[in-house]
Amino acid sequence: MQSPARKQPQVIIVGAGFGGLEAAKKLACEDVRLTLIDRSNYHLFQPLLYQVATAALSPADIAAPVRAILSKCKNVEVILAEVESVDVEARQVRTKDRVFDYDYLILATGARHSYFGHDEWEKLAPGLKSLEDAVELRRRILLAFEYAEKIQDEAARKAAMTFVIIGGGPTGVEMAGAIAEISRYTLAKNFRHIDPSQARVILIEGAPCLLAAYPPDLSESARKQLLELGVEVRTNARATNITEEGVQVDGEFIPCRVKIWAAGNIASFVGKTLSVPVDRVGRVIVNDDLTISGHPEVQVIGDLANFSHQTGEPLPGISPVAMQQGRHAARNILRMIRGEKPKQFRYFDKGSMATIGRNKAVADLKFFHLSGRPAWLAWLFVHIIFLVGFRNRLLVLFQWAWAYLSFDKGARLITRNFQSEHRPPA
Amino acid sequence: MQSPARKQPQVIIVGAGFGGLEAAKKLACEDVRLTLIDRSNYHLFQPLLYQVATAALSPADIAAPVRAILSKCKNVEVILAEVESVDVEARQVRTKDRVFDYDYLILATGARHSYFGHDEWEKLAPGLKSLEDAVELRRRILLAFEYAEKIQDEAARKAAMTFVIIGGGPTGVEMAGAIAEISRYTLAKNFRHIDPSQARVILIEGAPCLLAAYPPDLSESARKQLLELGVEVRTNARATNITEEGVQVDGEFIPCRVKIWAAGNIASFVGKTLSVPVDRVGRVIVNDDLTISGHPEVQVIGDLANFSHQTGEPLPGISPVAMQQGRHAARNILRMIRGEKPKQFRYFDKGSMATIGRNKAVADLKFFHLSGRPAWLAWLFVHIIFLVGFRNRLLVLFQWAWAYLSFDKGARLITRNFQSEHRPPA
Repeated sequence: MQSPARKQPQVIIVGAGFGGLEAAKKLACEDVRLTLIDRSNYHLFQPLLYQVATAALSPADIAAPVRAILSKCKNVEVILAEVESVDVEARQVRTKDRVFDYDYLILATGARHSYFGHDEWEKLAPGLKSLEDAVELRRRILLAFEYAEKIQDEAARKAAMTFVIIGGGPTGVEMAGAIAEISRYTLAKNFRHIDPSQARVILIEGAPCLLAAYPPDLSESARKQLLELGVEVRTNARATNITEEGVQVDGEFIPCRVKIWAAGNIASFVGKTLSVPVDRVGRVIVNDDLTISGHPEVQVIGDLANFSHQTGEPLPGISPVAMQQGRHAARNILRMIRGEKPKQFRYFDKGSMATIGRNKAVADLKFFHLSGRPAWLAWLFVHIIFLVGFRNRLLVLFQWAWAYLSFDKGARLITRNFQSEHRPPA
Repeated sequence: MQSPARKQPQVIIVGAGFGGLEAAKKLACEDVRLTLIDRSNYHLFQPLLYQVATAALSPADIAAPVRAILSKCKNVEVILAEVESVDVEARQVRTKDRVFDYDYLILATGARHSYFGHDEWEKLAPGLKSLEDAVELRRRILLAFEYAEKIQDEAARKAAMTFVIIGGGPTGVEMAGAIAEISRYTLAKNFRHIDPSQARVILIEGAPCLLAAYPPDLSESARKQLLELGVEVRTNARATNITEEGVQVDGEFIPCRVKIWAAGNIASFVGKTLSVPVDRVGRVIVNDDLTISGHPEVQVIGDLANFSHQTGEPLPGISPVAMQQGRHAARNILRMIRGEKPKQFRYFDKGSMATIGRNKAVADLKFFHLSGRPAWLAWLFVHIIFLVGFRNRLLVLFQWAWAYLSFDKGARLITRNFQSEHRPPA
């Protein structure tokens, strides 16, 4: 295949999320040199992150080392580094201690939480984007019950057993459902001075309904299923302030120890270093073939891209979009190497689903809508199929089966940071 | 059973390690009020900690929530708190925000690493006592290979691929064997610029042989099995200094990025607050019935106790001693409640085993010694049997079977502390 006279073109992919990894798999073993750069050494299966945050799964169950996934193809190099900027003129990607040259670039650095200008809320109400976030949320949720068990002040105990989730999108709905479930079932009989099933779980959403991207009947069904679990759903409600003590929701102050942020995203800062237009939340405005203006060798995909050529609206920041764009960008590069033009991207929407709890979910499969147990089974099936790596799939299946049969959650660990312990009290 | 006229005696157990948990299980559902205090919410199966540090198992695989273990007996209360001191005169256990009264106390707060006065070495060469330690070591070991892959300076690359383990007891032997294995097998084909199987693993021991507590033939066998894995074993060698850059071993400076401390223990500081004699490493000198002088209502067990009544030497800090003492202390309390005297403790030694790698181990079963595969199978069997909780046992068995068949390690995650990420570079 490879002509010794021609130097293989160098492709760089930044980001090993759903988009970047799909692109890398497509280009692995092709006639290119491929460098995949990510700041983590693993690909994270983000849709199950809320299960780590609620102690059902371990971090390693939903993460697979990128090196191992791509180890078979010798033309692929994986670099653990944080990209600081892209110089599109020089065709260079810069990290702290090294500069990488490229012929073709796929930028897939994703998004992080946005606190709408209230960065001070981040420590008070963590979001759920990374494994570190998930382990921190798990720690806070479990610690709240431990604190409630030993505290003797009634108001403090009530606040410790109140959980406020800000944002009624899929992450907010999943977290609310999962916290309600562990308090009603898993922890119910483990305490002596509190009844965990009395925990208040409050879901705050600014819009008139939950899951704004779903059809109205499914939004309504999600609300009903959450109410069945005892979650208080407040739509048309806005968190106007967050403090250690609680959350101000419009006129009412809700004392609570644990607050969870699921309300907004902002695109990775790397997009801004391309010197092309970005939208209000930092997403790079891409051409209809995923390239950027004036630089067909640079493609931007996934949560970092604003692709508005199909419906007039940007495509949503969900994994199917990122994966389809990843594969498309990889094929575009192979086309350009052959001297052809990059092709227009079109998103094929197979529908979406959100889970709420055991036997509780909604699924919008375009031609029909599912709720409750059928939706949950569909969700389970799809998520197991897509989990990266054979081993993870079996392990997760085993843990789910166990959790389903026993109501037990296996990963109820409160871990701290390294070296914050072992210290005699001062 | 319970006479309404008599108030149930209050028993406090501090520490949910092997000793404390065994005592708690024995007293659960007996006619006492039992409070178990620990600073973690889980019981840790410490003998498998090295497998978390080397990415074979996840933290949740070797830890079980204490509440769940003891949830069936209504007389047991579990408190997550760090004990600061014991007032034996007032019969009180003090934590930061609450004081607990007791009629009977079992103190089982264990031991931590000792750096022999060089506390500044702790950050440079972490030990392996807690889940946090294990995750930190896993991070350092995996990061070293990542760093070696991308660095271009040959000396720095060599240092990144050199691992020095200080201390040739069971932990040091296990860590050396496990690091050698992941570099020779698991990671071997995952890199492009380095050959992980060329990693140097150096085990330093001050004494003339490894595993000093084992019979000489097994010490020698352990050495040979480590050499087969390519580990450099240096006995009669002492680490005289540790810096970021490496370890000074007598006259030679060994440049290395990752250093692991497995050389010494010091008992928990809580023992010193009892106002009774402690030994050189802070262990409480106990009577032959595990009580302390003048206070038969206080018993000290496990790694915190110096029990020298059987052989003249203190019993070793291993789980069988702690478990037998835990059960004995619990029975002593039931005796004292009935008006009887506490009974003398005798340790029944069933032997001990240390693992080195796949098909590599040593087992001292008193009447016969095993090496290699038979020892490894014995080790595997015993450790699965003793792992707390049915679910953990199956999960671990599954992961071991997988690791054995595939040479893969499932938990190769480099995780950071919460909120040390998501930051654009300054």
